[in-house]
Amino acid sequence: MTTPPPSSSGPASGEQRLLERLLAGDKGALARLISWAENSDARYPGLMRALQPRLGQAWRIGVTGPPGAGKSTLVNELTRELRRRERRVGVLAVDPSSPFTGGALLGDRIRMEERTIDAGVYIRSMASRGSHGGIARAAVDACDCIDAAGYAEVVLETVGVGQAEYDVVTAADTVLVVLCPGAGDGIQAMKAGILEVADVLVVNKSDLPGAERLVLDLEEAVHIRANSGLARSGDEWSAPVVACSAGTARGLEDVLAAIESHRAWLRAGRLDAARAAKRLAHVRRVAHEQLDEELFVKRGWETRARQELAVGKAPWDVVEGLLRSLREQA
Amino acid sequence: MTTPPPSSSGPASGEQRLLERLLAGDKGALARLISWAENSDARYPGLMRALQPRLGQAWRIGVTGPPGAGKSTLVNELTRELRRRERRVGVLAVDPSSPFTGGALLGDRIRMEERTIDAGVYIRSMASRGSHGGIARAAVDACDCIDAAGYAEVVLETVGVGQAEYDVVTAADTVLVVLCPGAGDGIQAMKAGILEVADVLVVNKSDLPGAERLVLDLEEAVHIRANSGLARSGDEWSAPVVACSAGTARGLEDVLAAIESHRAWLRAGRLDAARAAKRLAHVRRVAHEQLDEELFVKRGWETRARQELAVGKAPWDVVEGLLRSLREQA
Repeated sequence: MTTPPPSSSGPASGEQRLLERLLAGDKGALARLISWAENSDARYPGLMRALQPRLGQAWRIGVTGPPGAGKSTLVNELTRELRRRERRVGVLAVDPSSPFTGGALLGDRIRMEERTIDAGVYIRSMASRGSHGGIARAAVDACDCIDAAGYAEVVLETVGVGQAEYDVVTAADTVLVVLCPGAGDGIQAMKAGILEVADVLVVNKSDLPGAERLVLDLEEAVHIRANSGLARSGDEWSAPVVACSAGTARGLEDVLAAIESHRAWLRAGRLDAARAAKRLAHVRRVAHEQLDEELFVKRGWETRARQELAVGKAPWDVVEGLLRSLREQA
Repeated sequence: MTTPPPSSSGPASGEQRLLERLLAGDKGALARLISWAENSDARYPGLMRALQPRLGQAWRIGVTGPPGAGKSTLVNELTRELRRRERRVGVLAVDPSSPFTGGALLGDRIRMEERTIDAGVYIRSMASRGSHGGIARAAVDACDCIDAAGYAEVVLETVGVGQAEYDVVTAADTVLVVLCPGAGDGIQAMKAGILEVADVLVVNKSDLPGAERLVLDLEEAVHIRANSGLARSGDEWSAPVVACSAGTARGLEDVLAAIESHRAWLRAGRLDAARAAKRLAHVRRVAHEQLDEELFVKRGWETRARQELAVGKAPWDVVEGLLRSLREQA
């Protein structure tokens, strides 16, 4: 009988064990690592350094759209279908700002919980406030964790309202914008912004009246954009419009086929550049958080700003003074 | 007959004229100044420095809540009522991220346009993406502009989803969280977050079934919070719950009375500290934008980060290296 030797329980060896558990597919280890990322724990950077060579294998699918479009149902069905294809799936649901729609999402999450008993599915919710820093920073780090843990697909779901949520979803490789009929005259207003973000336009609840009209409207908008100056070059991806009914799983194959097409298109020589841009954006987000700590807290900018504001200095002038002190060092 | 002398049209004199027009109540001048703020125009800081002594007169009312709660109707009616009391009102509507609910808000805005023919009302919409920097930074600067222009009330409306929108609304002196019956079981989930933000809880559409129940639920939640460790000190404001029906203008007086109570409470020796904290948060937001420009653009951090990422360095390690170079200067 082998008894494990008493572990020399320095934090470094604890981290080594966490790493081993993570690579062995332990969901608890993954959950721990994501929590460290969320809280900017000092142990996170070292672990991710070790995991860096394992990154980039997962395909990151962003799912966004207005409240009520049926995103969570779609994510649930997509997950089921991907599992049928024997892909391991990590789902990161970025709930919108704690208070307001948390309840509705909670309901959707409960349906999603069916998936959690499957060892090949990892599900995590992240509140869009409450993490140490910005939500986009924490969400992208969480995707990295799931990627490093060996999941083949990461589904990143956000409610598409607000700049932070936009930042989150654009960190994905393929972005699905989910709409449903009945949004009415909102369509005109949303076209421009949607087309900018979407790699695949999904018209969900396709059995409802108005679905065909919405598909046609969106297709026309995509077409107009492709032939206008808005498409920056000849090498622009043109988002397909796919109708589906996530509730009855109809059209799901088409959604997956559209994701697959976009993936193939990116992989034909475009993926490295696309991901490099997203990594750079992430460096900026991490830097913004760390700079605040470094300058406002450690270097006393906070105290100085407080004093200058107290004597009536304008905020922009306070900042200009702080930046000047930084420049003078250089 | 007096002919105006040909103006010496250097930019400085142009800014002086803008200032004069602003102080004379010219809405076009105010619109121009807000656009400068939005775009971080180089002329903005100088003008705001000149206007600094005029700031702080306006009362800033934040209005937030989930989509469909009737925020815009309430803002419209509040504006009407404040005008009846001969207060000049500036309304800043921060639309959520361009694409998704822009349409619905647009409809509400059209109703609001009735107010625009009134010289004592200024209305401005701000997209929550597309401004040079963060939306909260731009929105608070826009409030400063409206304040400096002499409006007695600034109403700051956001859809309460997402971190950026939360940042916006918490820059207000008095925050109204607007809810309506029918949100159902979401209430439990939202209580904590709502109570943290709200100075006044408004139950809108009070003629709908479930309104009384919602009022009672919220009152109970406020009561529980007041008697728990969540309220930080004995000197905590306890948010009143006010029922109203903005569509029929019923209960509006009560909403205004609640705002007035909160204003009186803050003015009893608490306002300076509350506003100082908000100004400091604003300095941080301005600094984050300016630091990105200073370091990533002017100092070449962007190029360096790009190179280091290209050779497989982890984002957090890239940032650590950049920060080290900053520390070594100090």
